[in-house]
Amino acid sequence: MVSFTSLLVLVVAVFPVRVQCLWPQPTSITSGTTALNLSPRFYIQPDVYPPPADLLAAITQTELYLRTDSMQRLVLGRGAYDMSAVQSAKTLSSLVLSLEPGATVESISTEAVKALGTRSEGYTLTVPADGSTATLKANSTLGLYRGLTTFSQMWYEYNGQIYTVSAPYDIVDSPAYPFRGFMLDTARNYFPVSDIYRTLDAMSWVKINTFHWHITDSQSFPLIVSQYPELAQYGAYSSADVYTPTDIQNIVSYAAARGIDVLLEIDTPGHTASIADSHPEYVACNQATPWSTFANEPPAGQLRFTDPAVRNFTASLLSSIAKTLPSTVFSTGGDELNINCYTYDNQTQAELNSTGLTLEESLSVFTQATHGALIAEGKTPVVWEEMVLDHNVTLSNDTIVMVWISSADAALVADKGFRFVQAPSDYFYLDCGGGGWVGDYPAGNSWCDPFKTWQRAYTYDPLANLTTTQIPLVLGGEQLLWTEQSSPTNLDPIVWPRAAASAEVFWTATTLGGGALNVTEALPRLHDIRYRMVQRGVNAIVLQPLWCALRPDACDLNA
Amino acid sequence: MVSFTSLLVLVVAVFPVRVQCLWPQPTSITSGTTALNLSPRFYIQPDVYPPPADLLAAITQTELYLRTDSMQRLVLGRGAYDMSAVQSAKTLSSLVLSLEPGATVESISTEAVKALGTRSEGYTLTVPADGSTATLKANSTLGLYRGLTTFSQMWYEYNGQIYTVSAPYDIVDSPAYPFRGFMLDTARNYFPVSDIYRTLDAMSWVKINTFHWHITDSQSFPLIVSQYPELAQYGAYSSADVYTPTDIQNIVSYAAARGIDVLLEIDTPGHTASIADSHPEYVACNQATPWSTFANEPPAGQLRFTDPAVRNFTASLLSSIAKTLPSTVFSTGGDELNINCYTYDNQTQAELNSTGLTLEESLSVFTQATHGALIAEGKTPVVWEEMVLDHNVTLSNDTIVMVWISSADAALVADKGFRFVQAPSDYFYLDCGGGGWVGDYPAGNSWCDPFKTWQRAYTYDPLANLTTTQIPLVLGGEQLLWTEQSSPTNLDPIVWPRAAASAEVFWTATTLGGGALNVTEALPRLHDIRYRMVQRGVNAIVLQPLWCALRPDACDLNA
Repeated sequence: MVSFTSLLVLVVAVFPVRVQCLWPQPTSITSGTTALNLSPRFYIQPDVYPPPADLLAAITQTELYLRTDSMQRLVLGRGAYDMSAVQSAKTLSSLVLSLEPGATVESISTEAVKALGTRSEGYTLTVPADGSTATLKANSTLGLYRGLTTFSQMWYEYNGQIYTVSAPYDIVDSPAYPFRGFMLDTARNYFPVSDIYRTLDAMSWVKINTFHWHITDSQSFPLIVSQYPELAQYGAYSSADVYTPTDIQNIVSYAAARGIDVLLEIDTPGHTASIADSHPEYVACNQATPWSTFANEPPAGQLRFTDPAVRNFTASLLSSIAKTLPSTVFSTGGDELNINCYTYDNQTQAELNSTGLTLEESLSVFTQATHGALIAEGKTPVVWEEMVLDHNVTLSNDTIVMVWISSADAALVADKGFRFVQAPSDYFYLDCGGGGWVGDYPAGNSWCDPFKTWQRAYTYDPLANLTTTQIPLVLGGEQLLWTEQSSPTNLDPIVWPRAAASAEVFWTATTLGGGALNVTEALPRLHDIRYRMVQRGVNAIVLQPLWCALRPDACDLNA
Repeated sequence: MVSFTSLLVLVVAVFPVRVQCLWPQPTSITSGTTALNLSPRFYIQPDVYPPPADLLAAITQTELYLRTDSMQRLVLGRGAYDMSAVQSAKTLSSLVLSLEPGATVESISTEAVKALGTRSEGYTLTVPADGSTATLKANSTLGLYRGLTTFSQMWYEYNGQIYTVSAPYDIVDSPAYPFRGFMLDTARNYFPVSDIYRTLDAMSWVKINTFHWHITDSQSFPLIVSQYPELAQYGAYSSADVYTPTDIQNIVSYAAARGIDVLLEIDTPGHTASIADSHPEYVACNQATPWSTFANEPPAGQLRFTDPAVRNFTASLLSSIAKTLPSTVFSTGGDELNINCYTYDNQTQAELNSTGLTLEESLSVFTQATHGALIAEGKTPVVWEEMVLDHNVTLSNDTIVMVWISSADAALVADKGFRFVQAPSDYFYLDCGGGGWVGDYPAGNSWCDPFKTWQRAYTYDPLANLTTTQIPLVLGGEQLLWTEQSSPTNLDPIVWPRAAASAEVFWTATTLGGGALNVTEALPRLHDIRYRMVQRGVNAIVLQPLWCALRPDACDLNA
């Protein structure tokens, strides 16, 4: 018979909850209780030939984090009680990076934008307790990048000493799902490029690998498209509130060097009133009132997709943008199409009459044209769930679907046989719960009340209600920030550390059996990554009084 | 018969909704539609002898805001369409400040800390459209300060030109209530002095005149008290997370120079576990578990008020702090006293047995001692509502009560005959709606769900359910930030511009008839002060897409 004590030791060995420093939790980890110092002359050596520039940059950045994080342990007394162990600890002088035999050397940036399911993000990281060289191995530079991220989270600082108390580490890690995203809407309110860089940094720290960029909407068109400069010239909030082609390339490069693919979304045919600012002839029900008859939010305005000129314009627009991007995915949106907008639009009705097509048939023609243009550029189209659940359009079999309205819709999309991304509003929308923003409505609440806590997101089961054969359709998931009530002033605290919740769900989930993760185990680690984010300049919101953060479990419900 | 058109003009003349720049709305204002430029050599001249240093500093600050706000009008095209009017506009060269005949010249700082109800905050401001000198008159430098604040909100910038399109202005303004506050809790999480300075600046912009500082609590004791340095030495989160006596004096001075009185709160006898870090003998149920039996949140811990030593210590502590502060008010807290804490405390029970007092009688003795010490220092005690609604303690008749649990309790406090401050959680708590922070509780929500929107706060009626004779008991109100889930990283967006809502309710309210103000009229002005706050370095949250902010009413529910 196994005693309770023995069982406890066993459990701790398998899942060492007191290693509170890593997020997402590696899929396999053993760690110890030995102190280990980081040498002031510590260096990271890439045994990778020739070492790609972005790998060298990642090494430099990691070394900088190690030296500047100044992250104190979240325990009573902070590092004070660690110092006696530290004084007799060995010192780690170097970490050596290498690729597994036979691996082809490519840059992180090249690896990061490969097709979903073909990237190699796994790595093996060993940090001995005796001061001998630490080793990080992977099949790709992208895997090495993920390992560097893990390594940079292991270290604390106290009185100038950088150290860990959990050596040795043996980690074998790889993600459960290929798509781990964060979506930002830059159309309701504009975000300068610097905010996006900072957000990409934070995403990389929790191994999020997709920046889903909802870049345009009815409110504004901040994207300068070389072939159609009039769109931003008239549709952006101002000549300063734009993303130039150079901005886009810089952001895509910045992301890729951090293992992040950019999934750009030009939402069509709805959410396009801002196109009317330069092309009024392309848009039905532009700023029509009452807006609630024609759109889910002001202003109304949708592309006249029945018009061949609009079809050609849209296909050309998407193509001209897509061809500048390295990613294999591109989103055409497709959510919240309002039928009234077309019912009351004389031009649309005349075109339907002349062609003899129904609205849905015409939508299918439009979608095939726009998706065809993307496919011709080598892109896999991505759409919101309505395009498969509410409309009768012909889609390529490999189209990726975003489930957003409800987690219950995942199974419906799976029934249609499409691969999909879990982005359900009832778990993953970061903007819910801030009250209503529509005017003249004092009692208004956000449509997706209540606030989606990190605990809510963290307990999402990506495989709920799916059959065994449907499970491979789940590509992963993402948390999302729609920005009716957000702007640069609150970006960090509304996103972080909450968006780290899905990052772990989709990196670690299957390790823990496919069910919901455990918020009680997670909280100390989430505190840790939150405080580390703040040390690195991201204004992540605090989760509890510091009193609680320093005393794991003391603020639990039944403590 | 008055035509609809005539009626509309009349309404606009009486309440010119298109003057979107002022917050809080003055009690009496007429304005025009004439453009007026601000001279590059514009200056503010104080015809006040001798001019107090803080008045001169306020003038310098106002001139700086005028030159650096770079605030564009929130209209389509921003200032572009104003430029033709601006080209033919007159230029304002100076604003002259003067006190009404017979007024005594005192500093803003002196005026700001006078007893509630004795301060003079009113002013008269005239800005002619013809370029002749603008005039600001008041009965005190504090009134002049409020007028400067108003003046600084009148101006916009476009292409380097500073101008208004609403001259002439004639404003006669004074507050409806003497207490307009904001409360910050610096004990759950610590806020550096710089955050408090910035918050005081923002408060001054909307004429909030009381900084209610909940400085200590069970989680930490950041206040360094000269006579009791051990309290912070052991009770603060760290030696860096403290307010030194110099910090306190600097903050009090900074506030007073901005027309703000500091109402310091040392919460007693509950919410005092942090005192046990240095004086364990003074605290019952210190960190007792389960915490939920002994406190509303972890950690438990309450002063052993039955102990004469604790009574003397607390009276001495409050006295030693209060004597360093110029304010006439000081809060002893008194909320959420947990009886179990004493029922299970042997020492308390022994003391009750030996004295023959009931717990309530002993609490009254304690309160009379601590309040007596404050009164001896010339302070008026302030308490949370439980001290008059739940406990049977003898209080001085002029004690001020904070209504917090529910707006419904205001009438109950009024029935007791005490003056009170409206701080109800169901309208004014800024921390609600962010989900639960207690651990091991994935479904947890904040106890005061939902999020309290600015609209909710703005529609609060300070006089609801009060009799005519009770109305004078309402001193004003405040919005509050408890910081279990807040820290410097989200301070600005969680507070601003929401806390401006009560600032206007208690400045402007009676002008509009004593009932609820109108969110539809307010929204464009709230946008304006929000964007101006951002220009001045306060990260106020955005309320709507910029598309809506540029088009007043276009995003209204039925627009």
